[in-house]
Amino acid sequence: MQNFDFYAPARILFGKGFEKQVGELLKPHAKKVLLHYGGGSIKKSGLYDTVTASLNSAGVAYAELGGVQPNPRLALVHEGIALCKQEGVDLILAVGGGSVIDSAKAIAMGVYYDGDIWDVYENGTPIERALPVATVLTIPAAGSESSGDTVITNEEKQLKYGYGSPKLRPLLSVMNPELFFTLPKEQLGFGVADIMSHVFERYFTNTTHTDLTDGLCETVLKTVIKNAPLALDDPQNYEAWCEIGFGGTVAHNGLVGMGRAQDWACHNMEHELSAIYDVAHGAGLAVLTPAWMRYVYKDNVPMFVQFASNVMGVEGGFRNPEAMILEGIDRLCVFFRRMGLPVTLSELGIGGDKLELMAKKATGAAFGDEAPIGGLKKLLWQDVLAIYKLAAG
Amino acid sequence: MQNFDFYAPARILFGKGFEKQVGELLKPHAKKVLLHYGGGSIKKSGLYDTVTASLNSAGVAYAELGGVQPNPRLALVHEGIALCKQEGVDLILAVGGGSVIDSAKAIAMGVYYDGDIWDVYENGTPIERALPVATVLTIPAAGSESSGDTVITNEEKQLKYGYGSPKLRPLLSVMNPELFFTLPKEQLGFGVADIMSHVFERYFTNTTHTDLTDGLCETVLKTVIKNAPLALDDPQNYEAWCEIGFGGTVAHNGLVGMGRAQDWACHNMEHELSAIYDVAHGAGLAVLTPAWMRYVYKDNVPMFVQFASNVMGVEGGFRNPEAMILEGIDRLCVFFRRMGLPVTLSELGIGGDKLELMAKKATGAAFGDEAPIGGLKKLLWQDVLAIYKLAAG
Repeated sequence: MQNFDFYAPARILFGKGFEKQVGELLKPHAKKVLLHYGGGSIKKSGLYDTVTASLNSAGVAYAELGGVQPNPRLALVHEGIALCKQEGVDLILAVGGGSVIDSAKAIAMGVYYDGDIWDVYENGTPIERALPVATVLTIPAAGSESSGDTVITNEEKQLKYGYGSPKLRPLLSVMNPELFFTLPKEQLGFGVADIMSHVFERYFTNTTHTDLTDGLCETVLKTVIKNAPLALDDPQNYEAWCEIGFGGTVAHNGLVGMGRAQDWACHNMEHELSAIYDVAHGAGLAVLTPAWMRYVYKDNVPMFVQFASNVMGVEGGFRNPEAMILEGIDRLCVFFRRMGLPVTLSELGIGGDKLELMAKKATGAAFGDEAPIGGLKKLLWQDVLAIYKLAAG
Repeated sequence: MQNFDFYAPARILFGKGFEKQVGELLKPHAKKVLLHYGGGSIKKSGLYDTVTASLNSAGVAYAELGGVQPNPRLALVHEGIALCKQEGVDLILAVGGGSVIDSAKAIAMGVYYDGDIWDVYENGTPIERALPVATVLTIPAAGSESSGDTVITNEEKQLKYGYGSPKLRPLLSVMNPELFFTLPKEQLGFGVADIMSHVFERYFTNTTHTDLTDGLCETVLKTVIKNAPLALDDPQNYEAWCEIGFGGTVAHNGLVGMGRAQDWACHNMEHELSAIYDVAHGAGLAVLTPAWMRYVYKDNVPMFVQFASNVMGVEGGFRNPEAMILEGIDRLCVFFRRMGLPVTLSELGIGGDKLELMAKKATGAAFGDEAPIGGLKKLLWQDVLAIYKLAAG
């Protein structure tokens, strides 16, 4: 086990009814909040009314900024920063999924940042301060409700970069799984792929002696694999959504990756797809993850045998590890298909013409500054290109 | 899954060397700390010198108070409160195991409490404020390094009571598993029994639809069962101590019990043993837990079958659940024996004369105020007495 620094202070208020308490929960922390949300589904569902009624009743003033898109855009972040300064906002309340929360975190940093907040995404500059962020989660997927991470798309530059800081951990997050009942089925699939990828990026490691975190990772994966089809077939299955929702938080609050070298190649490779083709992050991950597995498993056969056995339930056959591993990967693809997810680039409408460009962007080679990505296996742009080609379909 | 409120803000700095950074870590939070410790083993091991050198080098002043005993005493807490007030201490640094940390938390509350801090243990009065507490952990057991809980013994009244508040969660905790190398073997056993009990108290529940937290509980239990004998046989096995140490934190930071009705009967029953006989908490738990299991399992057979299968590795036999369960409990006793733990009250030197008194104290019947204890099965004093008798040996 490697040394680690674990810090996950976000308070999670989980279950029925907490969204009605948002005002009381925020009152000790803020006089005026920015209510930040997406394309308006919270108005249709009534959540907007519930949250604003709660803020009003607690005497918490608010400004508002909707319109966050999937793969949240820098332009709206700039707008949010200006609005917060103008309105004297002292906390940002993100009501939505990971895109809304990530956008909120960018605004929260930007209010105190002297310059264009895109700098920190591009250069990784440590930030000094950020406004506190609170969330009401409507999509279990990104884990942004407890993480210190944010990913923003610079639409002008066709770049999608992430940034992380302990100062971006939300103050508190409300998660009522009833709010997930009305999600489109494809959103459930995308979310599940993202949750599982957050675990995979930590699970697949060359670090040894990781019994505890191996088991925590496997538990989250098995819980999601068991419950996601239940929610798919019965969107009102509260208990199944509970498991997926809480699983999404545990997948990405940092715990399951402590003491382990991590990977993150799939996330890196996916960001290139989203930046150019604006595909759903979870869809991109579902396509790339099995291809990545097929490309890298020979570098750590025991790790992938453990995955096949402990996560995908492939029995016996330890004397033929390769067959076990390939069966495990096949079962993962079957699961993704069951969830309505694509497993090839062609299903995403992505052809071969930009694969090399994306591979070079993912590794920095496009900018004359190549550094290998990934942990379990270090990948140069030629490796990434090979994985894109494996995923082509 | 039940509604829950999860909040575990303690920062955990885990691994080699962090104890040398204590001064730098505390400097942003304190000008003067109370260095609180136990019977002096930290002076023999050199940890005292390491920590004070780090404080000096960072320019953090300190007062000190040693002498914390296992089952930490109220009298020393009173002394610590007076010392903190006199010295203008603004943070308490506990260097030791759960007893030292629990004592530190009592002092931290007491500094701001108008009256005898024992009141809050006896009455559960919510506290308004507490000094921040930081810890350097020397015994993996109590989980107090991340929990908001404290247990204090009032030696005059022969009472041992616990108290919990989010305000008592440590600011940060340093855990270097190398510090565990010199622990007496019996301390490892006691610690392991305590860690496992913290999980059992949450795991055994009548709440259904708890896939995620079931798996998290089982992972911690299996990790400890696998690694504790490795550390017993080779006290320099760093990796085994890592698994036990981090397992102890995850067992008691709250996560594995979220959304579940919890039990805590074994802890309640054990506190009566410690209060009168001053036995080690872990030893008392090892004795009482299997007896409790034998007494209650018929109230939730599927839960105990799951324990036997998923934790103790009892295979097949689902058509004879009772045999599976009893085999699982037997295996737990074998494991406790392997760890050098007692499994009967007579091994602890506890005879039959005070069993009824303890049973009546545990349930409040001794004070004319009986309330059943336990979650999976509600226990009145007659039930507790029956369990004590089952444990008698």
